[in-house]
Amino acid sequence: MKENLSTKLLRSKLVDGQLVPGGEIALHMDQALLQDVLGTLVMLELEAMGIDRVKTQPTVQYIDHSLVQQDHLNADSHLFLQSACERFGIWYSGPGNGISHPVHMERFGIPGQSLIGCDSHTTAAGSMGMLAIGAGGIEVALAMAGEPLYISMPRILGVRLEGSLPDWVSAKDIALEMLRRYGVSGGKDTIVEYYGPGLSCLSAMDRHVMANMGTELGATTTVFPSDDATLRFLRSRGRERDWRPLQRDEGCPYDMHDIIDLDKLEPLIALPSSPDRVVPVKDVVGQPIYQAYIGSSGNPGYRDFAVVAAIMKNSSIAPGVSLDINPSSRQVLQLLAETKELGQLIQAGARLHQAGCNGCIGMGQAPAAGRNSLRTVPRNFPGRSGTREDCVFLCSPETAAASALHGAITDPRSLDVPYPRIEDPMRISSNESVFISPLPIAEARKKSLKKTENTPSLPRIDPLPDSLAIPVLLIVGDNISTDDIIPAGGRVLPYWSNVYETAKFAFEPIDPTYYERASSHVRTGGHVIIGGKNYGQGSSRENAALVPALLGLRVVVAQEFARIHWQNLISFGILPLVFDNPLDYATFEQDTLFTINDLHEQLAAGEEVHARTSSANQPIIKLRHALSTRQLTILKAGGVINQRRPAENE
Amino acid sequence: MKENLSTKLLRSKLVDGQLVPGGEIALHMDQALLQDVLGTLVMLELEAMGIDRVKTQPTVQYIDHSLVQQDHLNADSHLFLQSACERFGIWYSGPGNGISHPVHMERFGIPGQSLIGCDSHTTAAGSMGMLAIGAGGIEVALAMAGEPLYISMPRILGVRLEGSLPDWVSAKDIALEMLRRYGVSGGKDTIVEYYGPGLSCLSAMDRHVMANMGTELGATTTVFPSDDATLRFLRSRGRERDWRPLQRDEGCPYDMHDIIDLDKLEPLIALPSSPDRVVPVKDVVGQPIYQAYIGSSGNPGYRDFAVVAAIMKNSSIAPGVSLDINPSSRQVLQLLAETKELGQLIQAGARLHQAGCNGCIGMGQAPAAGRNSLRTVPRNFPGRSGTREDCVFLCSPETAAASALHGAITDPRSLDVPYPRIEDPMRISSNESVFISPLPIAEARKKSLKKTENTPSLPRIDPLPDSLAIPVLLIVGDNISTDDIIPAGGRVLPYWSNVYETAKFAFEPIDPTYYERASSHVRTGGHVIIGGKNYGQGSSRENAALVPALLGLRVVVAQEFARIHWQNLISFGILPLVFDNPLDYATFEQDTLFTINDLHEQLAAGEEVHARTSSANQPIIKLRHALSTRQLTILKAGGVINQRRPAENE
Repeated sequence: MKENLSTKLLRSKLVDGQLVPGGEIALHMDQALLQDVLGTLVMLELEAMGIDRVKTQPTVQYIDHSLVQQDHLNADSHLFLQSACERFGIWYSGPGNGISHPVHMERFGIPGQSLIGCDSHTTAAGSMGMLAIGAGGIEVALAMAGEPLYISMPRILGVRLEGSLPDWVSAKDIALEMLRRYGVSGGKDTIVEYYGPGLSCLSAMDRHVMANMGTELGATTTVFPSDDATLRFLRSRGRERDWRPLQRDEGCPYDMHDIIDLDKLEPLIALPSSPDRVVPVKDVVGQPIYQAYIGSSGNPGYRDFAVVAAIMKNSSIAPGVSLDINPSSRQVLQLLAETKELGQLIQAGARLHQAGCNGCIGMGQAPAAGRNSLRTVPRNFPGRSGTREDCVFLCSPETAAASALHGAITDPRSLDVPYPRIEDPMRISSNESVFISPLPIAEARKKSLKKTENTPSLPRIDPLPDSLAIPVLLIVGDNISTDDIIPAGGRVLPYWSNVYETAKFAFEPIDPTYYERASSHVRTGGHVIIGGKNYGQGSSRENAALVPALLGLRVVVAQEFARIHWQNLISFGILPLVFDNPLDYATFEQDTLFTINDLHEQLAAGEEVHARTSSANQPIIKLRHALSTRQLTILKAGGVINQRRPAENE
Repeated sequence: MKENLSTKLLRSKLVDGQLVPGGEIALHMDQALLQDVLGTLVMLELEAMGIDRVKTQPTVQYIDHSLVQQDHLNADSHLFLQSACERFGIWYSGPGNGISHPVHMERFGIPGQSLIGCDSHTTAAGSMGMLAIGAGGIEVALAMAGEPLYISMPRILGVRLEGSLPDWVSAKDIALEMLRRYGVSGGKDTIVEYYGPGLSCLSAMDRHVMANMGTELGATTTVFPSDDATLRFLRSRGRERDWRPLQRDEGCPYDMHDIIDLDKLEPLIALPSSPDRVVPVKDVVGQPIYQAYIGSSGNPGYRDFAVVAAIMKNSSIAPGVSLDINPSSRQVLQLLAETKELGQLIQAGARLHQAGCNGCIGMGQAPAAGRNSLRTVPRNFPGRSGTREDCVFLCSPETAAASALHGAITDPRSLDVPYPRIEDPMRISSNESVFISPLPIAEARKKSLKKTENTPSLPRIDPLPDSLAIPVLLIVGDNISTDDIIPAGGRVLPYWSNVYETAKFAFEPIDPTYYERASSHVRTGGHVIIGGKNYGQGSSRENAALVPALLGLRVVVAQEFARIHWQNLISFGILPLVFDNPLDYATFEQDTLFTINDLHEQLAAGEEVHARTSSANQPIIKLRHALSTRQLTILKAGGVINQRRPAENE
């Protein structure tokens, strides 16, 4: 039977379950990546579970988020992570090496392998024929310990790319076109698989842009074939031995199908403050800009910087505009330095920043309040830039560069220069010693974690009780992101490893009183949160579940959950339920009492759960769950760490 | 009569007074520079005084300190400063252009002119034959308004440089040798003038290193001749027209004299945490390091980076060491990008940061707690790096680079490579449009300041009363720096323009209860602080006077004051007094009541001031002041702004 590439990859990693959409499947994970903000918690989870050595090979810890060191906290955290890498047998990629996603692709990615990462953009490695999935840190920790990853079997959306990209239109515009068509939750429980003749105009890093931003669709992951472009990419890094060809079977079926005619695409832009508010650039030209921001895993390739340099050549940015260049990796920065591009950018008036995630995650380059910022980053959720009242647009490097030259949003097709076609160099030099390799196991066992008061061991979470009678403390709307649950930014990220500190910021952007109100209910059994559609979208940060659990959150009732967060809630012992009738959402007010009896029996008996409320007009509400037996066991235990704590850690 | 160069420069700018050490002189200021942190207050002072247009030409506002934008505050502040430049006729050098001191030298500095700057390292321009003096922001504001700068006429210390520098020894080692000889207050009320045959081995930027760090000696400024090296520097920037030769008269006298035989110098290093704890590097080799930090105005030259690149060529830094490259200016960064040096640094494992002050002022790259950091910055006061328990050493780029390679403090002479002799290029390209020039006055008058709630107008300060009976709230030791009075770092600097917010951090490193205790005494007449020697050393930040004034500080009694802070106290209406008998310091305890009667009469009558204390064993204390009649008038008015507020601002 003819198979699409996604199905082939899934089948090759399948440990348990059936490849039928909606059912739970268990997948073997070959590789794992950690970024630093979430990595600290993963290391503390390995500690709590008594793990001796990780099984995923390679596992790589990247220092890419917490690069702004205004006090000792981030630097201390780097040392903690380095010590954990020594202890558990993990590669360490220190500050300055760049963003996990492009660096993993450059140095570690292998077509046909599976990759799990505690970062929602881990999917980017799908650009090179990997099965790359972002997950909560705890799921990554379990995979590192050798356990499979459990996911709901996604549908496969085949997207045929036809034609080739016109001048001044690039991979970001394809990603934005997908967001225009499908919206931020249109890819839920879906793998997007690109194929077709249009692929030939897309380099491996162009594909990275699209696979990366598949996450903005809510997709489980994105898959590209491993073909000549993949080989070219690996060969230029001296890694052609890691290449293998991977293709769909010609004529294979898909659960859903779509076609993009690349010839017809034009420069697109996402308006503030959602990645799917996509319009043609030409519709918004002339709006003044404060900033043009180049870089991030949303446009990490050498080409993405070089094209800006070519546009800037012998020109200057408009006075007062901040053109912020954020190199994605040491390799890309070195390449730009060795060619003439970096000098051109600096000459034109750019600000060059260190290699890393930087302003994409609110760590620097936050725009002035209310000023327009054009960014090549993957996301523009409100406040993610670090500025609460931000106006962030998403666009291609071409559009950002053209706009920086003019000081206003500019369709790059209106520039009076030939379109710069940039080729990646055939051979890229790099220095292997900037990665610290794992220690042999005998040496590793002698190492201990360099802990500080900012890396406290994880708290125990109470098992899910059989009956609940607790108040609703928070009612939120649609598309609540994990940024809303635990904000990022320089104020919070240095404390990420410390659940007791991050707790103070929980739901702060939505309701600054939540922390205190929740704290006061911890001893009386906790509380409930009511959510709308796509609850928990965005970043895979697990403390968006762990921290509310610490603060007594026992149940979230929503109209719909984002996948990773749904999984995280279960992993940390919080019960996710959906309304049988979405209109019941309106039943709830703050402090409505929410009661469930015989909960364990109800959960085991089937999908339905009946709850009582203190609301006069609707005392009984029908809810549903989608928990597997495995997940029920986790919830009853109070989460996966409780399940696995060794006796001596009890 | 034969004159040294310092005297010639002083005479050419003398507006009032006699060139006799100790007397007050008034000097005309040709140019002015502002950095961004202190510049905001200067602009608010211009506003409070109703200034229409600045008189110093050029006046340049640099954005170099507040570059870490984790929320909107710094970006808002940049826009405020840009609007103030438009309003008052000031050049604007935006973020990314680099540190004020080297950039001013590259683009604006002119031999023979005087320069005032609200930054203690403004003295660096003495490297090119300027009379360059750091001062409190209010003095800079007055100079910008066309008033002279008043200083106590310094003594002139002639330092003859003989011989030439051995391999692996560079300008930083001369600066450290001076600190070894004279200590952090040895240059008080002194101009250091370098001359002699040893100058010929020092480029203009090498001299910048020494003139910059003259501030660490407490010197009023440092003076170098304008000679061939100066011409070479200006010519390479296409600015040879700005050159004029300036030399001492052969055989001229000095108030003091010293000789440094460059041939006998060896690599030196200042131990934590004072710039004068200088020892030979060879005495401390082998201590493990966490970080090597290159850059800052303490080693800003192209050479200072290129020599590190040459040492790093085809090598790698030791695993786990953070080699932080902080380009000093856009010009230097562009040069490093256009040559091969930048690629070498990145290849070797360096982290490249944006051009600016960065970690030198605690804005990034803070070391892990208790780990050794080797830096080419001018200062290593405790906590200045951003890490409270830091261990910062000061050394040359050569020593820092050698140590980064080995992961431990290393004498660069032990490296097994030939010493790289770096020549500045003959011609350096740059882009003039990255500087925004002043508006014509008619246009400027139409502009208004872009104020926010973080740029409140300045408070009024009460005139000095004729009698005081107020408590001692704080007793501090020797060498209290302005960093101790108002800490810098990412937590505080974004609020620098807002005295009501920065007040909350006043004296926090010494006594976190100060803010609340002082606030509670504001209405009952304020309070007194007792200090030791060299009170108020370091940064020229004027809010170290303005903020305590807002909190009711009326008098500081110290054993000795640092010059700039002493002036700042007066400018903001705080009376600085010294003990007639330094041992009387021990009389005071916290909350000792301090009483002065007939204060105005006592101050006018002469140097002596008699105070009463509530201390049983010493009820009467003899104090001294060194105030001129002009300064007495300022104090009685409650500071210089009160003196000058236009009627409509009352």
